[in-house]
Amino acid sequence: MDLQGRSAEPHVLILGGGFGGVAALKALKKAPVRVTLIDKNSYQTFQPLLYQVATDELSIDEVGFPLRNLLRRHPRWAFHRAAVTAIDLEKKQVTAEGLPPLTYDYLVIALGAVVNFFGIKGAADHAFPLYTMRDAVRLKAHVLEAFDAADKDPSRVDDGALTVCVVGGGATGVEVAGAVAELIRDELKDDYPGLPMEKADVVLYEMGPELLGPFKPKLRAYAKRALEKRGVRVCLGEGVVDIEPTRVHLKSGGVVKAHTLVWGAGLQANPLGASVGIPLVHGRLPVGADLSLAGHPNVFVVGDAAAATDARSGRPFPQLGSVAKQAGRAAGRNIASLVADRPAQPFRYLDRGTMATIGRGAAVVELPRGMTMTGFVAWLAWLFVHVALLAGGLERSLTIRDWVWNLLTRRRGKRIVID
Amino acid sequence: MDLQGRSAEPHVLILGGGFGGVAALKALKKAPVRVTLIDKNSYQTFQPLLYQVATDELSIDEVGFPLRNLLRRHPRWAFHRAAVTAIDLEKKQVTAEGLPPLTYDYLVIALGAVVNFFGIKGAADHAFPLYTMRDAVRLKAHVLEAFDAADKDPSRVDDGALTVCVVGGGATGVEVAGAVAELIRDELKDDYPGLPMEKADVVLYEMGPELLGPFKPKLRAYAKRALEKRGVRVCLGEGVVDIEPTRVHLKSGGVVKAHTLVWGAGLQANPLGASVGIPLVHGRLPVGADLSLAGHPNVFVVGDAAAATDARSGRPFPQLGSVAKQAGRAAGRNIASLVADRPAQPFRYLDRGTMATIGRGAAVVELPRGMTMTGFVAWLAWLFVHVALLAGGLERSLTIRDWVWNLLTRRRGKRIVID
Repeated sequence: MDLQGRSAEPHVLILGGGFGGVAALKALKKAPVRVTLIDKNSYQTFQPLLYQVATDELSIDEVGFPLRNLLRRHPRWAFHRAAVTAIDLEKKQVTAEGLPPLTYDYLVIALGAVVNFFGIKGAADHAFPLYTMRDAVRLKAHVLEAFDAADKDPSRVDDGALTVCVVGGGATGVEVAGAVAELIRDELKDDYPGLPMEKADVVLYEMGPELLGPFKPKLRAYAKRALEKRGVRVCLGEGVVDIEPTRVHLKSGGVVKAHTLVWGAGLQANPLGASVGIPLVHGRLPVGADLSLAGHPNVFVVGDAAAATDARSGRPFPQLGSVAKQAGRAAGRNIASLVADRPAQPFRYLDRGTMATIGRGAAVVELPRGMTMTGFVAWLAWLFVHVALLAGGLERSLTIRDWVWNLLTRRRGKRIVID
Repeated sequence: MDLQGRSAEPHVLILGGGFGGVAALKALKKAPVRVTLIDKNSYQTFQPLLYQVATDELSIDEVGFPLRNLLRRHPRWAFHRAAVTAIDLEKKQVTAEGLPPLTYDYLVIALGAVVNFFGIKGAADHAFPLYTMRDAVRLKAHVLEAFDAADKDPSRVDDGALTVCVVGGGATGVEVAGAVAELIRDELKDDYPGLPMEKADVVLYEMGPELLGPFKPKLRAYAKRALEKRGVRVCLGEGVVDIEPTRVHLKSGGVVKAHTLVWGAGLQANPLGASVGIPLVHGRLPVGADLSLAGHPNVFVVGDAAAATDARSGRPFPQLGSVAKQAGRAAGRNIASLVADRPAQPFRYLDRGTMATIGRGAAVVELPRGMTMTGFVAWLAWLFVHVALLAGGLERSLTIRDWVWNLLTRRRGKRIVID
């Protein structure tokens, strides 16, 4: 307490409860600071598994973690569910919907990304992105409603009601295409015995010449084969130019009848970054080696909101959950150092490898020193890593055991959609 | 096949996939008939546990059962997700949204009930009923949003943001009041450390002089004590006359500040019954002893849609899931008999007792021959019966084990709400 009886403890404000924000919070566990975490949702989303919510393999409760649980046993931490509307670096003040202005001594901007439709006509209105829990629930509802509608009116089948297009051959596109194909083959085929399932097409469009660009050629080729084995039609060198509710116009000039288009093509930095009045780098906030904002040593930016460069390679960090998590932890530790009058340290990313799953029993894994895995072994590795990630950060409960059990036994949810 | 090559098998049309409709379907398993089941949702709802969805003890997947699962291994059964819009007994034809007209040889009307607000001002707009899955999800979202709003703006607390009123002292009202009180005490108290939880009131209003009218006086008194022990304020002989979004006007003249009002006060027959052109009895379709509609031996009405009288007591059957289920089975068997040129049999309801739970470890049970139970023993009996019911009709999976485990360990869902 200072002489006026106010708390002398510095106030750390963390914007965003994703991988970066939560890691920053946890790194401040022992620091003599008050912390306020703000997120527009009451839960953290485990985004790498959102596609499993969309395909009814996991429930929202299994992929979400209640941020308020973090408050237990931490009386100096607060959480408010509110959308951040403005950041004022001059006044050291943040405004969020429904809250009085919040002042800070240290700020962590971990607001993540928003979907980038690259200005493609109709995409914002008719494409289904897969970045938030709401996106995943909407996509699932839409696919099931398209099948229901075709079940009632069979003329819709030839209009493309059962066709799902996926745009983007990165991890999101590959994972959702494989999972939708399995959903149709394992469940919907039995749910809709009257529908001609041979007309339930899953088509993946990728502008570039390969799927999974950042992976090694061997893994890319495996992913393509594994998708095709699951009935996914993979169209490389093809993009979309116009999206209507039931039609997709291709760059090459064709028109595809499809009532569902999943958008897995790209993200852009949260537009709030632009409001802080700092020149952006590729839409992101430029940070130094210690992740602090240029000219603002008390402001840290982590995850997809940051334009951070790996000092060793000179290249920007990939937009991965693991980067956000490690950067969040580094930012939290740097704040703790500054509070203790120690200097902030440069952030070093420890690359543990990348992976993507194509379906049950099929995945690709690329480890840092050039080692790769494909197929069932890779899938087991993927499973093991995700269990460890879920167990470490999100949930130590029955969920994991059930999830693994469901994956192994092909048990699913119940295709329940609330209007 | 007849001479024109059409199927000679009679077509049974079942309207409604609740306890009654599904039981009728299952009773037709071995009958030489085609069956079409219609429901506006793709799932059956286990209504006795809806209050647990509203209080985040169960997920929608745990209380819903996908009706399409019934089709597996039954090629002569069909299901369509569609809302029934008209029943024409003359033409033996039913219309449902998005479907061509459906003709039938035998019809089962199992459309259930709709909420009855008894014309109370503001109720339809501002009260939260608890009869459908959507109702339960909406109520949960509303309570959590009221707490979130108070967390951001503490002046809302004294405006009643944390107060939940429950109207109706029947099983629904008692169960939801107890469950909401436990949700606040067990979870929300920890989720919102900044809120004054002593102001989080749960108030139950019952017009009559007692809770749980059909139960014995001893059980009613126990239920009142058990609710009060959980912090619920029980107001007997009190009703509501006007409901505003944040204010409840009482019959006695008082005004209560409350941002949530749960409507557990009553149901009325599905209005579609009125469209069939038969004089109704208390809004319901009158049926004979064999559950067939007066003058229409090929049309059966079961569950809340039917005005059925117990021949032994001369009184109407209670509106319970167990009555609907047994009646549905009887209707299905009667159709099978008629198809086989045997006469339909009168319906006999086997009363296995009634029960209601007040919270974890507290319930009341009344068995047919006057035996009663209260407290923990009653709660174990309640648990056992519901496990058996879930296991019998709905789901034979991990869900039950998890549900029992969650109940015993007080583990809950994650208060996740999608906008």
